[in-house]
Amino acid sequence: MARCRVPLLSGWITPFIMGFLLCMSIPLASAKVRRYRWEVTYELQSPDCLEKLVIAINGRTPGPTIMAQQGDTVIVEVKNGLLTENTAIHWHGIRQIGTPWSDGTEGVTQCPILPGETFIYKFVVDRPGTYIYHAHYGMQRSAGLYGSIHVSLPDGISEPFAYDYDRNIVLNDWWHKTTHEQAAGLSSIPFVWVKEPQSLLINGRGWFNCSQAGTAVCNSTNPQCSPFVLTVVPGKTYRLRISSLASLSAFNFEIEGHNMTVVETDGHYVEPFVVKNLNIYSGETYSVLVVADQEPSRNYWAALNVVSRKPDTPPVSPSSTTTPTTPPPSPTAPPAGPLWNDTEYRLNQSLKIRARRGYVYPPPTTTDRVITLLNTQNRIDGHTRWALHHTFSQSAPPETYDRANYDIFKQAANPNATYSDAVYRLKFNSTVDIILQNANSMVPNNSETHPWHLHGHDFWVLGHGPGVFDPVNDPLRKYNLVDPIMKNTVAVHPYGWTAIRFVADNPGVWAFHCHIESHFFMGMGIVFEEGVERVGRLPAAIMGCGDSHHLRRH
Amino acid sequence: MARCRVPLLSGWITPFIMGFLLCMSIPLASAKVRRYRWEVTYELQSPDCLEKLVIAINGRTPGPTIMAQQGDTVIVEVKNGLLTENTAIHWHGIRQIGTPWSDGTEGVTQCPILPGETFIYKFVVDRPGTYIYHAHYGMQRSAGLYGSIHVSLPDGISEPFAYDYDRNIVLNDWWHKTTHEQAAGLSSIPFVWVKEPQSLLINGRGWFNCSQAGTAVCNSTNPQCSPFVLTVVPGKTYRLRISSLASLSAFNFEIEGHNMTVVETDGHYVEPFVVKNLNIYSGETYSVLVVADQEPSRNYWAALNVVSRKPDTPPVSPSSTTTPTTPPPSPTAPPAGPLWNDTEYRLNQSLKIRARRGYVYPPPTTTDRVITLLNTQNRIDGHTRWALHHTFSQSAPPETYDRANYDIFKQAANPNATYSDAVYRLKFNSTVDIILQNANSMVPNNSETHPWHLHGHDFWVLGHGPGVFDPVNDPLRKYNLVDPIMKNTVAVHPYGWTAIRFVADNPGVWAFHCHIESHFFMGMGIVFEEGVERVGRLPAAIMGCGDSHHLRRH
Repeated sequence: MARCRVPLLSGWITPFIMGFLLCMSIPLASAKVRRYRWEVTYELQSPDCLEKLVIAINGRTPGPTIMAQQGDTVIVEVKNGLLTENTAIHWHGIRQIGTPWSDGTEGVTQCPILPGETFIYKFVVDRPGTYIYHAHYGMQRSAGLYGSIHVSLPDGISEPFAYDYDRNIVLNDWWHKTTHEQAAGLSSIPFVWVKEPQSLLINGRGWFNCSQAGTAVCNSTNPQCSPFVLTVVPGKTYRLRISSLASLSAFNFEIEGHNMTVVETDGHYVEPFVVKNLNIYSGETYSVLVVADQEPSRNYWAALNVVSRKPDTPPVSPSSTTTPTTPPPSPTAPPAGPLWNDTEYRLNQSLKIRARRGYVYPPPTTTDRVITLLNTQNRIDGHTRWALHHTFSQSAPPETYDRANYDIFKQAANPNATYSDAVYRLKFNSTVDIILQNANSMVPNNSETHPWHLHGHDFWVLGHGPGVFDPVNDPLRKYNLVDPIMKNTVAVHPYGWTAIRFVADNPGVWAFHCHIESHFFMGMGIVFEEGVERVGRLPAAIMGCGDSHHLRRH
Repeated sequence: MARCRVPLLSGWITPFIMGFLLCMSIPLASAKVRRYRWEVTYELQSPDCLEKLVIAINGRTPGPTIMAQQGDTVIVEVKNGLLTENTAIHWHGIRQIGTPWSDGTEGVTQCPILPGETFIYKFVVDRPGTYIYHAHYGMQRSAGLYGSIHVSLPDGISEPFAYDYDRNIVLNDWWHKTTHEQAAGLSSIPFVWVKEPQSLLINGRGWFNCSQAGTAVCNSTNPQCSPFVLTVVPGKTYRLRISSLASLSAFNFEIEGHNMTVVETDGHYVEPFVVKNLNIYSGETYSVLVVADQEPSRNYWAALNVVSRKPDTPPVSPSSTTTPTTPPPSPTAPPAGPLWNDTEYRLNQSLKIRARRGYVYPPPTTTDRVITLLNTQNRIDGHTRWALHHTFSQSAPPETYDRANYDIFKQAANPNATYSDAVYRLKFNSTVDIILQNANSMVPNNSETHPWHLHGHDFWVLGHGPGVFDPVNDPLRKYNLVDPIMKNTVAVHPYGWTAIRFVADNPGVWAFHCHIESHFFMGMGIVFEEGVERVGRLPAAIMGCGDSHHLRRH
C-alpha cells in the first residue's frame, strides 16, 4: 500500500509514466468504492417551462453528481428503464486505464444496454478534477442524459489554490424537438438542420417564453424551470466547477460585475489568469474562483451567451447570483457577452491556457506520427456529413489532406466524399500529433468551431493559430513545448488550426470526435486503436451485437 | 407433393387436425418463396397533414402489402434502421406452425432486433385470407409500423363468392404526441392518459385541421394527406379487405348509400350477411363485398366513425368513393354512423358472425380447462394498469376471479393488484376455453371494449352475452357449437362476456392480449405455453437478451 506522494502532489499523472501510474492504481489506504445504482427512464419534465420528454437518471436531469476521491473505484449499475431504446454512458475525462470496456462508447467499446437490462461500469478515478458523464449513444445526451463527476484530492493533500465553497455549474442548450426528430432530419435527403436551441440551461434550468409555445404544455411558474440561483456569502471565495454539455453551442459565461480566475480545466491545474467572462466549449470543464466582493445589497446576473454561431436563443435572463436574502433581480440588463463572431477574442483565451507552475509535465519534444484532420463538411451518397479529409476513397483513413490544392477559405469545389473505416492503428507507446485544420463548411463564408474530445487520454495542447497550419514554421514558432496544458477536449477555431500531442500508451480502442452532438452524428469522428493485444479478456457484458453476438456470456 | 384438395376446398384448417395440417405444410407444386427486404426507419411524414416522425418500412407507412399464395414461404429480411431503438414485427393471424420463433413478439418469442442489425422472419402462409403485420415492441405499431398480408388461394381453387376487384382498406387512429411520450405518461404517477386520437387514417391518410396545429408544421395541401379515394367502375363488385390497426379506437366503417356483404373475417369465410356499416375492432380483418350500384354521377363518403368511446376526433371527411372522373365531393354530409354508446348494436353484429356453410368445422364439444379472465383496471405499486383478475398474489396466474363477491358493474372496492408471471402452461393438445368477463374500469359507470388477440392459433367464438357470465346456463343456452366462426381477434363488449375455445396444439409460447396498444402496454395480456418440449432447436438469432445472452450464436 505504497503512498505515491510525489505524483499525487504533482496533481496529475501523464499517461506515459507507467511506473507511477501502476503505483497510482494500487489502492491507497483511503481508497473507497463508490457505488451508484441508476435507472435511466423517460420522464415528462419542463426544464425550460415547456413540457417535454427527457431522459433522466433516477428521475433527474442532470443526473446525480458522482463524488469521489482520487484513487477510488466508482461502480455505477446502470439499469436501462427505457421502453424500446438502448443506452450507454461515457465517463468523459476518465481515462479508463486498465478498464477500456468501461468507456461507455456504444459501437466502439461496448454493445448498447438493452431495455430492462443492467450494465455495470467499474473504473478508478485516478486523478482529481472536474469531469462529466453523458450518454454516448445516438443523440441521447441531448435528451438530458448527463451529469458531473467531481474527484477530490486524497486526505491531507491540498489544491494549489484556496476557496471557501465548491459549486457546480452545468451548462447546456435545449431543443423542443425530440432527438429522434433531430436525428431523422440530419439523416434526411434533403438535409434538415436542427437550428439554434430554444433555450439555454444552467444546472438543467432554463426559460422559454410560454407565449410562443403554441399548443405545447408550457407553464412559466413551474418550479422545474425556476431560475437557478447561486446564493453567496459576501467576501467568500467560490470555486465554480463549470462544464459544458452543449449539443451545439459554444458558450460565454459571465457573472455580472465579478471577475473569474481560471484555475483548472479538464482535471489539470491552469496557471491562473483572470477573465471577465469565460468561453467554454462542449465537453470542456473549467474551475474558476469567484470572490463575492461586490455590493451585497443587490443581485447580479449569471449570463450565458452563445458565441461562434449567430445567436437565435433568448439569453438565460432569470438566473442571478444572490445574497442570502432574496432581493429583486439585478437592476441592470444581463451582460451581453463578447461579440458572437469575435474569433480572435476566443483564440486569445485558448492561447492563455497553460499548465500551472509546479504542475507542469512537458511533452515529448518529438513526435512519431503526424495526422492532419481537415475539418470540413461534405456530401456522402447525397447526405450532408462532417467529413475529415474532403475526398478520399481508401478503406483505411488518410494521414492528411491535399494541402497544396485545397483552399480552406472556400467551399470545396467538389463536396462529394466517401467513407473509410475511420480506424487509425497507432503503434503502442508512440507519440502522435494531431493537426486539426479547420476549413469552410458547405455554406459560403462559414467555418465553425469544433471542440474535439479524445477518449482514454489527455493530450498536450501544443498550439492554436489562424489560417492554414504551416508544418515547417508553426511547430518551430508557435508550439508550446514548455508548459502546455493537458486536456481531453479542445476547440479548433473557425478557419484556424489546433495542434495536440499524446502518447498511445493506453491499450484499447478510443474515440476522437467533435463533441457537438449533431456533428458527431454526421460523422465527425475517428477511432484510435492501440495496444489491443495488451487488453486482457474482455467482459462478456460488452458483447452481444454485430460481430460479437456469439461472444456474449454471463 | 400431394395436393390436399379436400382441406383446401374447406377453406380453412382447424389447428387440431394435425394430419391434414402436415399434409398442408408439404409444399404444393406451385408453392413459391416470397422474399421481402425491408428497412425500418424514422421518417418525417404528414399522414394527417401535420408533420410528425413516423416509423416507416422502406420509407412508407403503412408498409408494403405482402402478397402471397396459400402454401408459399414468406421470407422478410427486416433491417433495423432506427438510431437507438430496437424493433420486432409480428405477423398477425399467421399461426407460425413449426416456426414459433418467427412470431415477432418481443420478450415472448424473440429478443428485439438491435439498430443496424437484420433479422430474417421465415414462415409459411398456410391459409388464404386477409391478415396484417405490425411492430410488437413498445408502442411502435402506433408510430406507423404496420401493413397488410393478403394470401390468395392456390391456382384453380376459387373463393365461395365472386367479385371483380380486390382492394385494401387499412384503418387506424393517429396521435400527434410521440409514442415515447404516450408511453411515459401511461407509466407515470400520476397517470397521464393518451386521450382520443387527433385524427383517423384510411390507408395511412387522414386530415387534421391545420388551424389548430399551433407551432407544428402542418400543410393541408401536402400530397401525403390528400384523401384516400377509391375509384370504382359502375356496376362492378369490389372485395374490400378491411383491417383495423387502431391503437385505441373501435371503428364503424360505412360507405354512404352502399350496403356491404360480410364474407370473411380473420382468414375465415363468414356466412354472408348484409350490413349498412361495419363495426371493426383493432386486430380484426373483414372482407366485404360492395357493388358500385348507386348513381355514378356523384361521389359517396367512406366514413370512419369512432364507437364504444365517446368520439373526440374529427371524422375523416375528405375521403369518398368516386367514379373515374373526379366530380366534386359528396353533396351530402358524411354518415354519422351508429350511436357511439350503442353496445347492443355492436353485440348484435358480433352474434351474426358465423362460419359459412360448407366451410364449417365444429369445435370439440367439451373442454379440458376453463380460464376466466376478468377484464378490469387496477392499480399496481401506484401505477394504473389493465389487470386481469382484480387482486391476486400468486406467482402463477389464477384460473378465475371471485365471482361470488365481485360486482362487475362497479369499481373495485380495493383496486390494488399485484403481478404474476402471467404464463399459463397448457397441456399439449388439450382443449381450452377462455371466458373474457368484462367489468367496470376505475372510472364510475365505465366499461370498455377490449379486442383480444391470440397468437399461434385461431379460436372458435362460442358466444357473447351481456352481464355476468353464467358458467352453468350460458354454455347450454348461448354457446354456438354448430357453426361458430374461427377468428384470431374478438371483442368483449362493455359489461359483457365473450367465450372462446381453442386447442393447444401448436408447440411454442403464445401471447394472448388486448389489441389496444395502451391497454397491452398497461399489462392486459398473458402468455400460453404449450408443447415447448416439441419445439426443436431454437435459432440463435432470437437470443441475446435477458436470460438468453449466452445462447446467441451466428
